[in-house]
Amino acid sequence: MSDPYRFARRGSTAEVEEGLGLAPKFDADGLVTCVATDAASGDVLMVAHMNAEALARTIETGEAWYFSRSRQELWRKGETSGHTQRVTEMRIDCDQDAVWIKVEPAGPGACHTGRRSCFYRAVPLGARAESVVLEFREGEKRFDPTAVYGEPKK
Amino acid sequence: MSDPYRFARRGSTAEVEEGLGLAPKFDADGLVTCVATDAASGDVLMVAHMNAEALARTIETGEAWYFSRSRQELWRKGETSGHTQRVTEMRIDCDQDAVWIKVEPAGPGACHTGRRSCFYRAVPLGARAESVVLEFREGEKRFDPTAVYGEPKK
Repeated sequence: MSDPYRFARRGSTAEVEEGLGLAPKFDADGLVTCVATDAASGDVLMVAHMNAEALARTIETGEAWYFSRSRQELWRKGETSGHTQRVTEMRIDCDQDAVWIKVEPAGPGACHTGRRSCFYRAVPLGARAESVVLEFREGEKRFDPTAVYGEPKK
Repeated sequence: MSDPYRFARRGSTAEVEEGLGLAPKFDADGLVTCVATDAASGDVLMVAHMNAEALARTIETGEAWYFSRSRQELWRKGETSGHTQRVTEMRIDCDQDAVWIKVEPAGPGACHTGRRSCFYRAVPLGARAESVVLEFREGEKRFDPTAVYGEPKK
């Protein structure tokens, strides 16, 4: 494991966008955004964040590591639930502040609510924002979050 | 157009996660993260941000609106390039701080560098972070960004 986590120096815009160096643009909190999609279906499973250590560990191990903003700690996906994610491919975006990983989930659901994906509700289009009523899509729980994580926060 | 942009009040965790009200969790800068995927291929095209107005306009018009953090302004995707995005579906995640939109792009590329997707480079796995050499994937430019946007920033 690299410690400290050395990435390429961020050079010019052209170097960042057209170069071969991994020079992530961590935000003020030291994080990049990570989108995890299901390697089989292509569906977005979750959006989370990675700090330098989580990014380095994911690259080095091929397993998804994140940084939990709510708990303010490094988080190996599946550490509690067993629902790890094997990364089949990682991409970085043009300005290198977002990562896309395609994953094979080891468990039934990526979402802490028990669903396969965190994106289990659709926002109907064409309505005024204040009159939106969300619609469940694949809303069924694939596992019991209380059994896996304990009692929920109130 | 709704003005001000009224969304549902953020209630308890259970209400936010299991309810039918759209109660986005805007961050300290007033933004939610938005992932845009290609409605046909499922590929992630870009990760951007929406403020309340961008989110409301996207819902109401079915066209993608974002908020540019670098320019600090509301941004109708395609306003300069003509490469608008028609939204075929919008999803919101469990804690309602991230939006996933499936889009039909009107133009050849979502990325300001001229590529179809912003995620045109892969990060090889299994290496130490400091020795990563990015690999281009679909790196060809679909349009000439200088012709569309003018001379790039240095």
